[in-house]
Amino acid sequence: MAERALVLRTVGEMQALSDEWRCQGHRVGCVTTMGYLHEGHLSLVRRAGRDADRLVVTVFVNPTQFGPLEDFDRYPRDFEADRSRLEAIGVDAIFAPDVAEIYPEGFSTRVEVDGLTDRLCGASRPGHFGGVALVVTKLFNVVKPTFAVFGQKDAQQALVIRRLTKDLDFDVEILVSPSIRECDGLAKSSRNVYLTEVERRRSARLFHALQAGMSVFRRGEKRVDRVLEQVRADLSGSGEVEYAEAVDLETLRPVERIEEPTLLAVAVRFGGARLIDNLILRPPEAA
Amino acid sequence: MAERALVLRTVGEMQALSDEWRCQGHRVGCVTTMGYLHEGHLSLVRRAGRDADRLVVTVFVNPTQFGPLEDFDRYPRDFEADRSRLEAIGVDAIFAPDVAEIYPEGFSTRVEVDGLTDRLCGASRPGHFGGVALVVTKLFNVVKPTFAVFGQKDAQQALVIRRLTKDLDFDVEILVSPSIRECDGLAKSSRNVYLTEVERRRSARLFHALQAGMSVFRRGEKRVDRVLEQVRADLSGSGEVEYAEAVDLETLRPVERIEEPTLLAVAVRFGGARLIDNLILRPPEAA
Repeated sequence: MAERALVLRTVGEMQALSDEWRCQGHRVGCVTTMGYLHEGHLSLVRRAGRDADRLVVTVFVNPTQFGPLEDFDRYPRDFEADRSRLEAIGVDAIFAPDVAEIYPEGFSTRVEVDGLTDRLCGASRPGHFGGVALVVTKLFNVVKPTFAVFGQKDAQQALVIRRLTKDLDFDVEILVSPSIRECDGLAKSSRNVYLTEVERRRSARLFHALQAGMSVFRRGEKRVDRVLEQVRADLSGSGEVEYAEAVDLETLRPVERIEEPTLLAVAVRFGGARLIDNLILRPPEAA
Repeated sequence: MAERALVLRTVGEMQALSDEWRCQGHRVGCVTTMGYLHEGHLSLVRRAGRDADRLVVTVFVNPTQFGPLEDFDRYPRDFEADRSRLEAIGVDAIFAPDVAEIYPEGFSTRVEVDGLTDRLCGASRPGHFGGVALVVTKLFNVVKPTFAVFGQKDAQQALVIRRLTKDLDFDVEILVSPSIRECDGLAKSSRNVYLTEVERRRSARLFHALQAGMSVFRRGEKRVDRVLEQVRADLSGSGEVEYAEAVDLETLRPVERIEEPTLLAVAVRFGGARLIDNLILRPPEAA
C-alpha cells in the first residue's frame, strides 16, 4: 500500500515545507512535469528518488510555454491517475497549483535564454522556451530543490535549463536522465496519445532514422551531411519532417563534421501531434 | 572598534554562508548596492539591521544596468571606504564579486519586467531596468535573504523589484525606506559627485519643485496638470528636465486626477549628471 503524498496547491505552503526539509538537512529532489505521467516521467522520478531524502513532483500544465495555436486546451490531464502513480513510487509531495496561483492578475515578468532558444524546436515554437525558462525559474523558487531531474528526450529544454540555472545562480544541481521508449523505439511522450493507429506505427521511424544516422557515424562517417542524408531517407513517408539536424551538444550550433559530442535531433509532425527525438553522437576521441 | 565583516567574492561561498545562517533560524537581511556608499545607502543598511539577525550588503557595479553611453566606467568606486562604513554599522558580510563571477563567458539569460519598465526613467534608459531585474534575481539567489531593503529615491526600481519578486515567487520580503537628503533637500546619490558647484546649488530645486507640487495638491488641487505646472515652473532654470510626471503608484500609468496614491517624479540632467527624485501624493481618503 503506497504512502499518501502531500498535495500542495499554494506557493507559500510548498516553500514552507521545503524550508523545513532543507533545514533538517534533507536533500530535496524535484521533477517538474505537466502531468499525464507516463513511464518517461516516472523514470525521472525514480532517478530523483535514488538521490533524494525528500521527493517533490510538480504537476502544472504551463500556459506560457504553449503558442496561441498550440494544444494547451486539449493537452491531456488526469490528476488522480498521476497522483496514484507518484504515490506508488513514494513521492513525498506533489505541487499542483492552478493557473491563477502561478500567473495571477498583473503578472508581467519574463525570463529569456538567448541563443539556445531560437534553434531546433525554438524556430517553430517562438516563445516556447521563454515559457519554460519562466516556469522553471518560478518552480525552483517555490520548491527550492537541492537538485532537479530533466529528460534527455527534451534535449534542448535540458540545455536551456542548465544555462538558466547557471546564469541566474540557482543553487540547484541539474541532472539529465535518458529517454524511455516504447517497444518499437518511439520515445514516450504525453503527446503520443494524439496519434492515430497508422501514425503510431509510422512514428517509430523517428528513432529508427536516428539509429540509422548513428550507424553511418559509427562506420566512420564524420560528415554531417552524409549522416543527415541517411536520417532524412529513413524519415521519408513517416510524417512532415520539421527538422533533422546535427548540432553542437553545448551551443546547439550546426556543425559540419562530428569532432565533438553532437546532438542528432529530429522533429516530425503527424496530423495533430508534433514528435521530437534525439541521440548523442560521441566521437571516441571526445568521449 | 568595529567588528570585521566577512568579505565574500564568490557565489558559492555566499550561498553556503546564507544556508548556514538560515538553517540556524536567523533572519538574513540584505541591501544591494553599487558601492560608493553615502548616507542614503547607510540608512537602508541600518533599517535592515533593525530586522535582521544577519546582515549582508552587496557591493557590485552592475554593467548590465548601464546603457552603452552611460557612466559604467567612470561610476565612482571605493571599496575600502565602503567596507569601513559597513563595518562601523555592524554588517556581517559583504558580497563583492568581480564582473566575471556574475557574468561569466557564455552568459545569455535575461529577466524583463514588462509595462513598469518602459515609463519614466525606463523611457530614456532602455535596458536599464532589465539589467536591474537580472542582477537582483541573481543576488537574491546568491544571498538568499529573508528580506531586502530598497530606497524610495529609486521609486521605479523599487516597484520593478516588488513586481519581479512576486512574479518569480522569490521568498523574499521587500521593504522600501525613505529618501535621505542633504540639508538643502537634494536626495543623496552616488552621482551627486558629478555636479559642479553651480549645478550642485541648482540641484536643490528638484526637491523644492516636488514640494511646491505637493503644496498645490495639499491646498486641494487634484488636477495633475495644475500640480505639474507648478513643478515645471519651479524646475525651470535648474537643468534639462527629462520628465516631470504624476503617475499611479502601483502601475506607473499617468493619471489625470489625484484620487489614489500618486507618485510625483522628476528627472533632470545637469551636464554630466542625471538626477531623479520623487514624492508620494496621498489623498486623505486613500491614505
